[in-house]
Amino acid sequence: MMADTPLHPLAHLVAPRSIALVGASERPGSIGEQTLTNLTKHSDFAGPLYLVHPKQTEMRGMQAWPSVADLPEAPDVALIVVPAAQVPRVVEDCAARGVRFAMILSSGFGEAGEEGAAAQDALVARARAAGMRIYGPNCPGLVNINLRLGLTFSPAYPEDLTSGPIGLATQGGGLGRNVLQAMERGIGVGLWASTGNEADLQVADFIDYMVDAPDIRVIVTMLEGVSDGPRLMAALARAAKAKKPVVALKIGKSDYGRKAAQSHTASLTGSAEVNSAVFREFGVIEVDDIDELADIAWLLARATPDARDGLAIYCGSGGTAALAADIVGTSGLRLSTFSEDTLASLGNDLPSYAAIENPVDTTTAVLADDSLTERTLQAVARDPDVAMVLVPNALEYGRASALQARAIAEVQEKVDIPILPIWMSDRLGEGYRHLVDTGFAPPRSLGKAIAATRRWVEYGKWRTAAGDLPATNHIAPADHAPRALSEVEGKSRLNAAGIRTLQSALAGSREEAIAVAERIGFPVVAKVASEHIAHKTEADGVHVGLADADAVGTAWDRIVAGAGRMHPEVQIDGALIEEMAPSGGIELMVGVTRDPVFGHILTFGLGGVHVEILRDVTRRLLPLDRPRAEAMMREIRGFALLDGARGRPRADVDAVIELLLALSRFVEAHADTIEEIDLNPVWVGPQGSGAVPLDALIVAREPRS
Amino acid sequence: MMADTPLHPLAHLVAPRSIALVGASERPGSIGEQTLTNLTKHSDFAGPLYLVHPKQTEMRGMQAWPSVADLPEAPDVALIVVPAAQVPRVVEDCAARGVRFAMILSSGFGEAGEEGAAAQDALVARARAAGMRIYGPNCPGLVNINLRLGLTFSPAYPEDLTSGPIGLATQGGGLGRNVLQAMERGIGVGLWASTGNEADLQVADFIDYMVDAPDIRVIVTMLEGVSDGPRLMAALARAAKAKKPVVALKIGKSDYGRKAAQSHTASLTGSAEVNSAVFREFGVIEVDDIDELADIAWLLARATPDARDGLAIYCGSGGTAALAADIVGTSGLRLSTFSEDTLASLGNDLPSYAAIENPVDTTTAVLADDSLTERTLQAVARDPDVAMVLVPNALEYGRASALQARAIAEVQEKVDIPILPIWMSDRLGEGYRHLVDTGFAPPRSLGKAIAATRRWVEYGKWRTAAGDLPATNHIAPADHAPRALSEVEGKSRLNAAGIRTLQSALAGSREEAIAVAERIGFPVVAKVASEHIAHKTEADGVHVGLADADAVGTAWDRIVAGAGRMHPEVQIDGALIEEMAPSGGIELMVGVTRDPVFGHILTFGLGGVHVEILRDVTRRLLPLDRPRAEAMMREIRGFALLDGARGRPRADVDAVIELLLALSRFVEAHADTIEEIDLNPVWVGPQGSGAVPLDALIVAREPRS
Repeated sequence: MMADTPLHPLAHLVAPRSIALVGASERPGSIGEQTLTNLTKHSDFAGPLYLVHPKQTEMRGMQAWPSVADLPEAPDVALIVVPAAQVPRVVEDCAARGVRFAMILSSGFGEAGEEGAAAQDALVARARAAGMRIYGPNCPGLVNINLRLGLTFSPAYPEDLTSGPIGLATQGGGLGRNVLQAMERGIGVGLWASTGNEADLQVADFIDYMVDAPDIRVIVTMLEGVSDGPRLMAALARAAKAKKPVVALKIGKSDYGRKAAQSHTASLTGSAEVNSAVFREFGVIEVDDIDELADIAWLLARATPDARDGLAIYCGSGGTAALAADIVGTSGLRLSTFSEDTLASLGNDLPSYAAIENPVDTTTAVLADDSLTERTLQAVARDPDVAMVLVPNALEYGRASALQARAIAEVQEKVDIPILPIWMSDRLGEGYRHLVDTGFAPPRSLGKAIAATRRWVEYGKWRTAAGDLPATNHIAPADHAPRALSEVEGKSRLNAAGIRTLQSALAGSREEAIAVAERIGFPVVAKVASEHIAHKTEADGVHVGLADADAVGTAWDRIVAGAGRMHPEVQIDGALIEEMAPSGGIELMVGVTRDPVFGHILTFGLGGVHVEILRDVTRRLLPLDRPRAEAMMREIRGFALLDGARGRPRADVDAVIELLLALSRFVEAHADTIEEIDLNPVWVGPQGSGAVPLDALIVAREPRS
Repeated sequence: MMADTPLHPLAHLVAPRSIALVGASERPGSIGEQTLTNLTKHSDFAGPLYLVHPKQTEMRGMQAWPSVADLPEAPDVALIVVPAAQVPRVVEDCAARGVRFAMILSSGFGEAGEEGAAAQDALVARARAAGMRIYGPNCPGLVNINLRLGLTFSPAYPEDLTSGPIGLATQGGGLGRNVLQAMERGIGVGLWASTGNEADLQVADFIDYMVDAPDIRVIVTMLEGVSDGPRLMAALARAAKAKKPVVALKIGKSDYGRKAAQSHTASLTGSAEVNSAVFREFGVIEVDDIDELADIAWLLARATPDARDGLAIYCGSGGTAALAADIVGTSGLRLSTFSEDTLASLGNDLPSYAAIENPVDTTTAVLADDSLTERTLQAVARDPDVAMVLVPNALEYGRASALQARAIAEVQEKVDIPILPIWMSDRLGEGYRHLVDTGFAPPRSLGKAIAATRRWVEYGKWRTAAGDLPATNHIAPADHAPRALSEVEGKSRLNAAGIRTLQSALAGSREEAIAVAERIGFPVVAKVASEHIAHKTEADGVHVGLADADAVGTAWDRIVAGAGRMHPEVQIDGALIEEMAPSGGIELMVGVTRDPVFGHILTFGLGGVHVEILRDVTRRLLPLDRPRAEAMMREIRGFALLDGARGRPRADVDAVIELLLALSRFVEAHADTIEEIDLNPVWVGPQGSGAVPLDALIVAREPRS
């Protein structure tokens, strides 16, 4: 860290100047002994290490103190490995002594039923009062591999000491260590925080720390649940502003996963769709499997992508080249078009039966001439349309594979763009090991490699195009029960917010209904008006295309009868008499919900079957700005329908954007009360004819008027 | 093979009684020498091996003959490794001498331009005349690992000798050998045919062979192109009838892949959608990446799935269990519900903080007690709702991982259902090696393992439910250019085939149009009638809702004017005056195309945006039978729309099925002439109200009438 940069609040946790180990032990195999061994034998810690033990005064030639209270100074970190029952007393001592960070590895707290949770809450309260932060409990600790410091009892720690530019923040331990073990492919994780129960410090805090940490270039996280959405969003926003990539695996994409994660961590997992939408807002690169974390993180550590998206495939087997090209295509990626120079150079060097257009199939000709791989691979890598070269290798072929690996490494030294060798064989020979040793970390399969490539290219595009980040809007809900406003009330509020709805008025009697209809002009629609009837159709409460006074009268009668039949206990306000929706056009749906973790989210999609059955929707955090509103519309699969596909008239997309922005402003102005808005359908006509919500449901936390 | 079973036509190619090696050599590193070494040093071949060399009379202590003509007997197989220029003379000798199979490894034929292709055609013609079959050319040969016989020059052959129940048929060599190298995970491939240019024998012929081969339990294939669809379908049908699983990777799912495969093999790759539809018809298990071939093949070799689909997850890490459960859910698979007995047994054995409901999180308690894994894993595997147990392991943890691997292997000995350990770490320790040695072939990642599991479960369902296989219908097209029939003609043919269309008649004049409309009854539709105008709307040729004689007259005028403007050179037949389509209902599309590889294919989907933009369609080979017609309807994403989703009336699905079957019979009866049928839209109303094509385009190979 630069000398003139203020220290991050967690700096002395991640790189403490002094440490107390509470629960140090010499008993072989005990937690206390393993932690002591990690700190002394396997760490390069130069500052004072205070051992705390109730009886022993000396351990392994080092002095020991009976309690934290007795220490000659307040250490930055107290590493606590005593049984749960003794933890409260130790935390009390730490708080009293002025310890900055209590790192509690012990389990038996929030994860262990109500009693444990209460004990955990008490620890947090005590620490907060003293200005002390808590890490854990119920975690394996923190390892700062770049500093060679293991604040952990794990016997595996000394085996996982490949330093590197990746920072890892996880809740659980097992999956986190899995990422560390990717060092076997040459992947270096420089820092791992495993936050366990997150009584106080959370994954989000370590993401925030790593945004500033100069030794960390890529932040990787694994989440089972998010307990504090705003804190996570704030950290992600800082990372996005610093353009430091964040890669995330979030459990909870299916009901099974949500249920298992909840029972494992007792934290809210939330909706996967909302979660992914929030990730996308901040450019977070989401993956689906744990090995994919390492693949994309390492690619990002090797090279920062920009807007270029051309990929080259370079291969010595025609079938392998074709398979790689096939997967590139199904992944929606683009193969580069080589320049004339590149083609001429390849044509000169390769035999006539080789394929010199992308994908390049050198044929086995390169096996006979060591320098040929170097020359031709370099020509490909220097092509101006190439952002990355994929070198899939289907086979371990002894000396030939080793020579190829050597050539790849040498070309990589000379070119700026990344070369990604893919080792497809289960047989790992000398060539594989050379690729690992020279920092390529070959992905485990063609499909996984191309998945990583896709994420790299997409991140490059996001990074280049990135505009304003969303302001986050987590306003605490007002202290009233949510209730549905009537349609009349809802529409009138929307009108006040600048959102046009159809001309309409409430009629309280049969005669008034006819009079209103005559004023608006036939045909009209009549709908039951009652805040108690949310599903109007089921109550025979919607009548369209009423062409004259008689039809309006009949509709009134049926509305009254229908409401009485379905909801005998409620009074209706009357009937809403409304201008007929324009014919033609397309139906959309626009919704707003308050996510318990992330706040207000806007959902947009085509209406009817598209949303109900095909689930073709997209989401954004509110408030919305124009570029994000435009982007979200283009994300739905059915956007072509709005955009004038197949000779259809182009819909009034601008009017839809204005509607979304006005709705966003409306929610922002009433963020404490708005719980849900459902504009479904919203009618949009051809360009110039506008976008109009035909129905509006607003649920707000308001006192009954 | 049983003594009383007739030999398969390829039996003496795959297991020859005698072999001639033409081009044998003693020059170290030459193709002839490598092949000789493979046949003598690395094969257990007991029959006579005749070496053919123009000059030498002896090689490595064996007699050599100057030509095939001089051999004392006609060998089953002549293995030909001479340069391309000498191959025609050798094939001539082989044909004359009565050799059964000429296996040509040499390249320089079909893959090497027009001259090579002509030379290849000549070889085939000569062989055919003599009743000799050709394997290759341009291929690495054939290896029968179960017999330990390498008919190949490959220096890698002696390293890939793990026999096993998997049979592999590929076109190219590189990707095929990649599957062989999966032996490093313990996967045994017993036979590999790599058919190269497929001048005569094709991948399909080896699939056909392996259906009968008792040493092959799972057939695996990798295809870049299909040159003979009926031959492939016949082989797949035999495999399906024998219930021997076929796993396939077909290149050509994207344009890039199709183009690369075409340039590599010069074979037709066809449409990926059609190809996948054909695979599904025969229960072929399609994969997306080459490592997935080995994963699913080995799972099928280990255990045959049935209709059971309950999966258990057994794990010592809560986070890993949750991630596995999550991916199981997003893959559409089902987690088992454990019986009371299973829960009681797990509850007894595991600590209170373990999760005993599926997914099981044993916690690290099992590390302290070796027998605990065995007891609890066995309890899970014996649960009646469990078809497979997934055991994801995130970490290499030294001795603990080794003990767990041992326990898994021991439990597998005792239970009938498969246990699938998943080794998620990049670190491969003793535990991994024990799993490999005991035959588990752990997949490379959680995602890949669950992808294999999904395919295993789906194959089990197909195998259990499998009804009649499709009759294949590859009828050569008639010798006329295809032409579009007029709508009148098209509808009249459909009516004759028992497919109801709307009441309609052709009107040749303005007056006649009005008269017809009065006869049918208003409102009517008027459409331009001309076989030259395929896109009627663009020619202002479609007018709907014509309510009276005046409206019909105006429509006539516009049709005539529109046709004249768009197609000044053509004469129109007049206007088709038609009954208005019933209102409400849902629009479908039904199409038939003649695929150049596989014959007539029927495509079904919801109409309009569903097919045009969302591509929500499904396909079947014709002719269709009732169960397959029913199944295909249920496959589209939007089926819920037909099935009465969200309070909609259920559509007349039975009428749609009758329509599909009638259309299938119609195509079958005119298989030589029908090129394309497009019924779009087809109107379907609520149950009982029928399904009616509103428009019909038929393209047929018929002489102009």
